[in-house]
Amino acid sequence: YLGAIEAGGTKFVCAVGDRNGNVRERVTFPTTTPEETMRHVIDFFRQYDLSALGIGSFGPVDLNRNSATYGYITSTPKQKWANFNFVGEMKRHLNVPIGFDTDVNAAALGEHLWGAAQGLDSCIYITVGTGIGVGAIVENQLLHGLTHPEMGHILIRRHPDDPFPGNCPFHGDCLEGMASGPAIEKRWGKKGAELAGRTEVWELEAFYLAQSIANYILILSPEKIIIGGGVMKQEQLLPNIRRHVIDFLHGYVQHETILQHIDEYIVSPGLGDNAGICGALALAIQALDKQ
Amino acid sequence: YLGAIEAGGTKFVCAVGDRNGNVRERVTFPTTTPEETMRHVIDFFRQYDLSALGIGSFGPVDLNRNSATYGYITSTPKQKWANFNFVGEMKRHLNVPIGFDTDVNAAALGEHLWGAAQGLDSCIYITVGTGIGVGAIVENQLLHGLTHPEMGHILIRRHPDDPFPGNCPFHGDCLEGMASGPAIEKRWGKKGAELAGRTEVWELEAFYLAQSIANYILILSPEKIIIGGGVMKQEQLLPNIRRHVIDFLHGYVQHETILQHIDEYIVSPGLGDNAGICGALALAIQALDKQ
Ligand SMILES: Nc1ncnc2c1ncn2[C@@H]1O[C@H](COP(=O)(O)OP(=O)(O)O)[C@@H](O)[C@H]1O
Ligand SMILES: Nc1ncnc2c1ncn2[C@@H]1O[C@H](COP(=O)(O)OP(=O)(O)O)[C@@H](O)[C@H]1O
Ligand SMILES: [Zn+2]
Ligand SMILES: [Zn+2]
Repeated sequence: YLGAIEAGGTKFVCAVGDRNGNVRERVTFPTTTPEETMRHVIDFFRQYDLSALGIGSFGPVDLNRNSATYGYITSTPKQKWANFNFVGEMKRHLNVPIGFDTDVNAAALGEHLWGAAQGLDSCIYITVGTGIGVGAIVENQLLHGLTHPEMGHILIRRHPDDPFPGNCPFHGDCLEGMASGPAIEKRWGKKGAELAGRTEVWELEAFYLAQSIANYILILSPEKIIIGGGVMKQEQLLPNIRRHVIDFLHGYVQHETILQHIDEYIVSPGLGDNAGICGALALAIQALDKQ
Repeated sequence: YLGAIEAGGTKFVCAVGDRNGNVRERVTFPTTTPEETMRHVIDFFRQYDLSALGIGSFGPVDLNRNSATYGYITSTPKQKWANFNFVGEMKRHLNVPIGFDTDVNAAALGEHLWGAAQGLDSCIYITVGTGIGVGAIVENQLLHGLTHPEMGHILIRRHPDDPFPGNCPFHGDCLEGMASGPAIEKRWGKKGAELAGRTEVWELEAFYLAQSIANYILILSPEKIIIGGGVMKQEQLLPNIRRHVIDFLHGYVQHETILQHIDEYIVSPGLGDNAGICGALALAIQALDKQ
């Protein structure tokens, strides 16, 4: 068996599966303290004979293999998890190769292998939920650099009619500060799910997401853009986003995929809610093969 | 010998050199019509026994090897060069392997091999001149995707005190529209070189460049940022840019390279004005080795 963990700020998904991305068993635990949550995680995996483990984790995380804190969750606002040695703790209990990356990089990898970006050299996976995160495959590899990208925090232009100051503790009105689920709730005074009928809400949301996607296109030029997360449950959003992306690019990127096939270019996850956990499975495969 | 062409909108640089990035002979021709300019280019290379050629070209260019127009300059505003089959024309005269990429990707490759980004896995090369262009190395490879990136045209926040509408024919006030050499000239009524004493000019210029660099960092997380081009001849710019980048990121990217060593993180080209032509030489090496 291959093991997989999708570690989120509200819940942990643990699964075992195979090389083809099939999930055999899957459980969910709430994210409480590292002690409690990890006990559940370890107890789950103890039932199986694992050959490798993949972890897609909320962050920021340290992915630098030469660093003393490789495999740690680093400076997260979730105090109890700050400086938690995630890979170290798993290694202590399960002596198998471990692949470790961000939750969104894992999801991008899952979609690349088995989902909406199969057969392409590049894609990005955007989640719009409690936060906004983006993972990327470029030239057939997960994108890393100095640290992992933090594309949810890019600076954007505010809409001239939007007085909301933004709720990112670092930047105020960065993308996440203006367009995450909690930002929507704070701006309009209601949860996103209760604002379904208010077209102006989703028009503005699409404006911010599309603007950021236009910049991701100009900077990374991905071959597929996959967008999921709780906020995207609003089905009116995706068509609005596509329309605004075309507007923002204004004919600059002369490619038929954008100009004529935008409906197949900016899409929902092919793996649905399983992108993250399948991606963690893919990280396990990579760890096994690299061994 | 290895041949190299740095094809710019105002001039072509042609050179021959060796595997170690040493340029042996170097000439420059003005960019006029394809017929005239290419005649000079061919005449120059005919003097040598070449084993491969590398071309870093102004764009947009078609880099998709499966495309019918691979190796073409495509929809450039320079009418005479639109749809020019650059690689095809060179192949017709010199039957050697040809590497082809954008001018800025070539420069990034040159800096990666022999300049300021030696030994790193990633870097970006920004030129601020007649236009603004950016090339990138990620995971040790040149960044490509659906097309090549067009990072000079990202959407940015305008400075609240800046009434200049921008001069990009596509987007008006994108980065290039607000911060290229011609944008500076149009906003202030004088060429950049004549504005050296006006601190407000370079403060505003740094504001726009730093904002874009902050977004490049959040999206690509490069290990080194190299910035050149005519406008950067203003030596006051680089320190201003570094200061603004720190401001824009606002402590979000917790990495000592940014927080403590920004002077070695955002730097001038290690190869000076030779980044582009050396990069073209590196494209020739890649073409030869891939053969
Ligand atoms: N149907 C919906 N419409 C709009 N927003 C929603 C909907 N369902 C969930 N959300 C919002 O999505 C966010 C949760 O995102 P989700 O991706 O489910 O979780 P997380 O980001 O914590 O992993 C919340 O802010 C919630 O208000
Ligand atoms: N010393 C200088 N200070 C400010 N701007 C300059 C200076 N020298 C050149 N420039 C500007 O740089 C631009 C030309 O950029 P350059 O990189 O030399 O050429 P190109 O982009 O055409 O290859 C022009 O707009 C010019 O006004
Ligand atoms: Zn932010
Ligand atoms: Zn533009």
